[in-house]
Amino acid sequence: MMTDRIRTFLDEVRPDSPCLVVDLETVQERYLAFRRALPDTAVHYAVKANPAPDVLRLLVQLGSAFDAASLPEIRAVLAAGASAERISYGNTIKKERDIAAAHALGVRMFAVDSFAELDKVARAAPGAGVVCRILTDGAGADWPLSCKFGCDPDMAAEILVRAKALGLVAHGIAFHVGSQQQEPDAWDRALSMAASVFRSVAERGIQLNLVNLGGGFPAHYHGNIPNLTEYARTIKEALHRHFGNRIPETVIEPGRAIVGDAGVIRSEVVLISRKSAGDSVRWVFLDIGRFNGLAETENEAIRYPIRTASDHARREPCVIAGPTCDSADVLYQHQPYPLPVCLDIGDEVLIECAGAYTAPYSSVGFNGIRPLQTYVI
Amino acid sequence: MMTDRIRTFLDEVRPDSPCLVVDLETVQERYLAFRRALPDTAVHYAVKANPAPDVLRLLVQLGSAFDAASLPEIRAVLAAGASAERISYGNTIKKERDIAAAHALGVRMFAVDSFAELDKVARAAPGAGVVCRILTDGAGADWPLSCKFGCDPDMAAEILVRAKALGLVAHGIAFHVGSQQQEPDAWDRALSMAASVFRSVAERGIQLNLVNLGGGFPAHYHGNIPNLTEYARTIKEALHRHFGNRIPETVIEPGRAIVGDAGVIRSEVVLISRKSAGDSVRWVFLDIGRFNGLAETENEAIRYPIRTASDHARREPCVIAGPTCDSADVLYQHQPYPLPVCLDIGDEVLIECAGAYTAPYSSVGFNGIRPLQTYVI
Repeated sequence: MMTDRIRTFLDEVRPDSPCLVVDLETVQERYLAFRRALPDTAVHYAVKANPAPDVLRLLVQLGSAFDAASLPEIRAVLAAGASAERISYGNTIKKERDIAAAHALGVRMFAVDSFAELDKVARAAPGAGVVCRILTDGAGADWPLSCKFGCDPDMAAEILVRAKALGLVAHGIAFHVGSQQQEPDAWDRALSMAASVFRSVAERGIQLNLVNLGGGFPAHYHGNIPNLTEYARTIKEALHRHFGNRIPETVIEPGRAIVGDAGVIRSEVVLISRKSAGDSVRWVFLDIGRFNGLAETENEAIRYPIRTASDHARREPCVIAGPTCDSADVLYQHQPYPLPVCLDIGDEVLIECAGAYTAPYSSVGFNGIRPLQTYVI
Repeated sequence: MMTDRIRTFLDEVRPDSPCLVVDLETVQERYLAFRRALPDTAVHYAVKANPAPDVLRLLVQLGSAFDAASLPEIRAVLAAGASAERISYGNTIKKERDIAAAHALGVRMFAVDSFAELDKVARAAPGAGVVCRILTDGAGADWPLSCKFGCDPDMAAEILVRAKALGLVAHGIAFHVGSQQQEPDAWDRALSMAASVFRSVAERGIQLNLVNLGGGFPAHYHGNIPNLTEYARTIKEALHRHFGNRIPETVIEPGRAIVGDAGVIRSEVVLISRKSAGDSVRWVFLDIGRFNGLAETENEAIRYPIRTASDHARREPCVIAGPTCDSADVLYQHQPYPLPVCLDIGDEVLIECAGAYTAPYSSVGFNGIRPLQTYVI
């Protein structure tokens, strides 16, 4: 959302358009909201959502832990001042040499979802802790996860039993209910599956102690989303329902819900046109599109709040497109976006809730267009 | 396609995986094939396909002209040694200050598809030449263009008439029949539309003299594609059919057809797994995916030829996915890809015909993964 600090920064510094401005006060507020709502649950910030060094440093200072997707992300978190034991290597697809390098840096928690990955961890990070990720269905999520990650619960149990046999510490289960998940009950379903794996593994003499509840907590793009306290209540009730009086340690991995609302993209209208004299729909072309920051508009999945200086004026549905020569670089066409009829070329357009999964998706320079620049204030 | 030079480079230099290797001999061969097939047509290489400086330098030496999508692409072409009159600014979405900067650098040809863009060119590049892009339907293309670019022929005629009134040189018509276009007849349909605009504008006393036939010429991903001579014959016949004895000057803008087949991506298998004990399909995870080079596998649009050292062995359909924690980073799932059953973690995987629209689409570092590195040999 726009804040006074972001508005002042844009007006005073006037950075080149387009750019992303992230307000650290919002980041801090969202992080602390998670700590309050789920005080017994460790927060592992999902670095991939926004790896800006100032964001990482703030979260280190606030005591956050981190979910890293790669060795470079681990190095970035260490460079921001975190100790290695605060980092879990959450990607289930890792080169063995990267596991070894992470282990050498002190990382001791690795996610797996297959026997082959487990074997890599056993070889490259002897004695480390593992969590096994299980498949969930992703129903209710705006950016649902496919079945790319996770295995079925029976296989997860076998993997965790084997982990112990290989000298690793079988910590528990991880899952992810799907990004921008708007149904808190999704955690209930996943926790039921996790508990069944705990029981199955316990029958083989191994007591698991950790559930990684993943991310998926939403940002406030449009409309009402459930309050964070509602997610927390559902999760706590589900933990009691499925684990009884042996509640495991828990971890959450918010990314979008911490940085999403903290960022605003400042963009500019490059062109407004029609395709024929009788065309009823205007095309509004911005200087930002799918290839320099707005990758999550693929299939119009994420619908960002877009603000202009004329939002009080009459609006008309418009097609919104990006600046490249790629015809896939269209943001909203199937569901056109209402924009003021008086909007003009050169006008400022603000794209809110844009702090997560924007700048790091930018192409290195497709069509010669520079990557989205981030300013953290 | 793999060449002896690329194989030798990979074996001797052993660059980190993944990487793209582009063979300039293939680039040269493809460029010269266009010159031979269409000797009366100027080749404007579409820089966005692969802006590697060595590729641009070679094409400058061979006498190519260039289609640039942005001011940074114009600067890159100038830096490669081209003179400004060899560059057309082909993007119909340009900031006025970028038009002015291009004009100051000597660029004299601009594409437009709207009155508003024309007015910008008239203000920022007085006296320059313009072509107006018309909408085509894109049928027959593997990566079809939406209606993002171009206007209807009636509007194009009005724009060109107005161009002259604004003191610009109304050169003619541009179109693009869709990328990886496998039906040469698509050019016939588009040339018919272009000729109707020529006639309509001539009735207003303006003689157009140029048709930009666009790109869309295919690379050899899979199966048979029409021979370049077949495209050339269709285009020449269509020019005679629709323009009679007043054949206009013509320009083509190949990108994919010049660099696509010249590049091979060297990748590595990171993980092979199944999702359950009874799962019949293996998931093969590579160290390259949609966010570090293979963006055109979106919706499985471009199906790259994939080679391994065991292609003689029995193969089984596999899901192929990339290395990020993003579940959208899946390359082939709806149409699984046959890979050898003996393929193993750590094995080399070669992705052929990967010289176009790969490295420049790489994210700056999503998931901390570095952009695809290009080696031009």
